[in-house]
Amino acid sequence: MHKVNLTEKFAMFSEQWKPKIVGELNGQHVKLAKLKDDFVWHHHDEEDELFLVVKGALDIEMKGAKTVSLAEGEFFIVPRGIEHRPVAHAEAHVLMLEPAGTLNTGNITGDMTVDAPEWI
Amino acid sequence: MHKVNLTEKFAMFSEQWKPKIVGELNGQHVKLAKLKDDFVWHHHDEEDELFLVVKGALDIEMKGAKTVSLAEGEFFIVPRGIEHRPVAHAEAHVLMLEPAGTLNTGNITGDMTVDAPEWI
Repeated sequence: MHKVNLTEKFAMFSEQWKPKIVGELNGQHVKLAKLKDDFVWHHHDEEDELFLVVKGALDIEMKGAKTVSLAEGEFFIVPRGIEHRPVAHAEAHVLMLEPAGTLNTGNITGDMTVDAPEWI
Repeated sequence: MHKVNLTEKFAMFSEQWKPKIVGELNGQHVKLAKLKDDFVWHHHDEEDELFLVVKGALDIEMKGAKTVSLAEGEFFIVPRGIEHRPVAHAEAHVLMLEPAGTLNTGNITGDMTVDAPEWI
């Protein structure tokens, strides 16, 4: 029962590619992440994933579809099953929405995998 | 598979208290609305509802809890079952997230009820 100020929350961490949970509703998590450079290619079998750019710019590269370039105030929903990777040429601040329990690296695990995202 | 630019979408309508759907993921709808003055008191039996202020300011009044005052870049999740009403002293542009099919007036119907929100 607390409001969330996005600027304040982004100021609480500096690690890149480590999503933080800032809200939960209807089985979904609202997450914040700082992204820079290329992420790993992956997909989510059962989860659609929303990326809203709060600061900076973000490309969503997808196999079989044209890259979607997002500026501040733009969002894109990656449908389940679509192989994708986010790419940020400079650090981007991004709000994500996806089902609770969604693994950031989807169908693969590796150095970039965050098993249990932290609540902030 | 299209990105959504919030500023462009808000420019597409002027009616207040008539949420428009701009995205769907995991059974949830992303909606945009322009809000001004008082809404009706209501609750949602089964749905949590997120309000993110994109422009302006918004109060969420609740029965049994202190009013939450949101500025730009702040969000609040009204848990299911909580009697509430949004109040905007000047027009606010708000992004909402809630399960598809959620009625804007929750447990009541009246002049403010939007039965089938429009996709824009």
